[in-house]
Amino acid sequence: MTDDRRVRDVGEFGLIELLAASLPAEAQDATGLRLGIGDDAAVWQPSPGEYVVVTTDSLVEDVHFRRDWTDWESLGHKTLAVNVSDIAAMGAIPKLAVVSLGLDGEELVSDLESLYRGLGGLARRLGMTIAGGDVVLASNGLVLHVTALGETHGRRTLTRSGAKAGDLIGVTGTLGASAAGLRLLGLDPDDPRRRAATANQLIEAHLRPEPRVALGAALLEEGATAAMDLSDGLLGDLPKILASSGVAARLHEGDIPVAAAVRALFPDAWVDLALLGGEDYELLFTAPRAAWDAIEVAAEKAGGTVAAIGEVVARGSDASSIELLSRDGRPRTVPVGAYDHFGVG
Amino acid sequence: MTDDRRVRDVGEFGLIELLAASLPAEAQDATGLRLGIGDDAAVWQPSPGEYVVVTTDSLVEDVHFRRDWTDWESLGHKTLAVNVSDIAAMGAIPKLAVVSLGLDGEELVSDLESLYRGLGGLARRLGMTIAGGDVVLASNGLVLHVTALGETHGRRTLTRSGAKAGDLIGVTGTLGASAAGLRLLGLDPDDPRRRAATANQLIEAHLRPEPRVALGAALLEEGATAAMDLSDGLLGDLPKILASSGVAARLHEGDIPVAAAVRALFPDAWVDLALLGGEDYELLFTAPRAAWDAIEVAAEKAGGTVAAIGEVVARGSDASSIELLSRDGRPRTVPVGAYDHFGVG
Repeated sequence: MTDDRRVRDVGEFGLIELLAASLPAEAQDATGLRLGIGDDAAVWQPSPGEYVVVTTDSLVEDVHFRRDWTDWESLGHKTLAVNVSDIAAMGAIPKLAVVSLGLDGEELVSDLESLYRGLGGLARRLGMTIAGGDVVLASNGLVLHVTALGETHGRRTLTRSGAKAGDLIGVTGTLGASAAGLRLLGLDPDDPRRRAATANQLIEAHLRPEPRVALGAALLEEGATAAMDLSDGLLGDLPKILASSGVAARLHEGDIPVAAAVRALFPDAWVDLALLGGEDYELLFTAPRAAWDAIEVAAEKAGGTVAAIGEVVARGSDASSIELLSRDGRPRTVPVGAYDHFGVG
Repeated sequence: MTDDRRVRDVGEFGLIELLAASLPAEAQDATGLRLGIGDDAAVWQPSPGEYVVVTTDSLVEDVHFRRDWTDWESLGHKTLAVNVSDIAAMGAIPKLAVVSLGLDGEELVSDLESLYRGLGGLARRLGMTIAGGDVVLASNGLVLHVTALGETHGRRTLTRSGAKAGDLIGVTGTLGASAAGLRLLGLDPDDPRRRAATANQLIEAHLRPEPRVALGAALLEEGATAAMDLSDGLLGDLPKILASSGVAARLHEGDIPVAAAVRALFPDAWVDLALLGGEDYELLFTAPRAAWDAIEVAAEKAGGTVAAIGEVVARGSDASSIELLSRDGRPRTVPVGAYDHFGVG
């Protein structure tokens, strides 16, 4: 029997599992590694008490961004931000990044300098070093690739697997702003929503997401049990924590924080934008009820906000692991599933 | 005045310098970084006595490899090997790698599993962990991207900048085999050279280069003053050490080690293959004469060989920094210059 499945048949997440299974066991768990394939980042322990967090992420033109929808400086910011967000989700502090650019040679040097200014601006603000990288020829479209390293000194990291029944489920900031910004970018420039006073705030949320570094560290400090960053939308990402932790969730739709601008500009779609919209790069986490007050205080001190949107429950026998209660307390059907680059959902 | 230069106008190395200059100074030298943009890898010191080496490299289809010239397992091996080679060149020990695949979705899953078996086989042999990564949609051709981490406990690393006048210049192994293998792959399958008994050995050198990890560690231990790995050919890479160290070189053509198979199959081209051929992934290094005997012994113990091919001399005022002496002792003109992905030489 030959295996003639193609990548589009098994999808992004199916492929990652199959590839991991193709590695020798020793190559998945050599000296000092604590977390491997599957979490937001890998954690490596080069010496006792020293934890190095490693993550890698690419932005591909016309898949992750459109050159006519972003300025180059924002693109540089976002390329670093999406990687730092993975480190923040572990409660670690980003320290260093290497950058690889795939270019076709026709790019304006001044545009790439702007890209680096955006990247460098965020790096400076976070106290990070851009430690080099390489430039390669890529015949069709820009590919921006970053690997970032962070550290947590002698402390554990947050992972996806620690959620326990009874924990509260929380998110930082608000949800749906990035997806709303992306919709605005796709509208006709003359569309009145595009010209609304609040439109730029949403577009900015999409083009220049702010990685929640201080909030991630606060969550780790205050006893959160699991965390990840929201890149694939709440209903796309929450199942990853639930599967890793072997639990289920009950969400209260009315408690999900959504910016007023999202509600105002998308009165019919804002609930879906908040539930399904990707790329908010807020943190999704679980924490014991007893820790919640301290987390709220620490979040405020870190310059952010947190909202409790549901609770972790024991896993039942039914297929869906998420029960979503609408405003009136009635269960809603949930369209679960992360965005899959290869269209497998 | 507007800057309308394009990437192809400034070239790979010109671009890297311009991009580095676009970063804020703080973002190039934050806490603990010892080496930044320009060397084979960056060195990060997360805590005193702990040196983490980071390197990143991509293989792009039809730029770095052809799908019809390699098997998938070899491609996996090489993708990891070229990164590990950068770590070996610092005298560090590779520990961990993250992998990012850019795919169009039409790839056979079984091919990618073979790719991972090749990658995992080398990782296991070196005691490395493949710690995850990501998969993204890339519309046109495969992009394989690896970031590798290594470490040297409480020891300095080898860099490009330590060469001193009077040092010997050495290389590990032999030069030109990979370039000869690449030429063989480009020949008609019926060409008699393609069917020579030694052809496979050269093709193997191209498709499955062996990173010189033990040799790199031995060079560091025995007092080599500078090192890098040979990816762009001897005359392409040596100038990088010379420029970083502010010195010049005299090379003895007759001392450059070239495999018998390369001489036999390419009687008219083997000197050029050895001087200009890329992708040998051998180590190029400098060392004091007094250290040479110990280096030879250590190399043998590490299962390899070293050859002295010239000496470091003080930099003169003439343009070229390399004097090449042919077998009869007469100077030859040297076509210096690294391969530039964007055709700028």
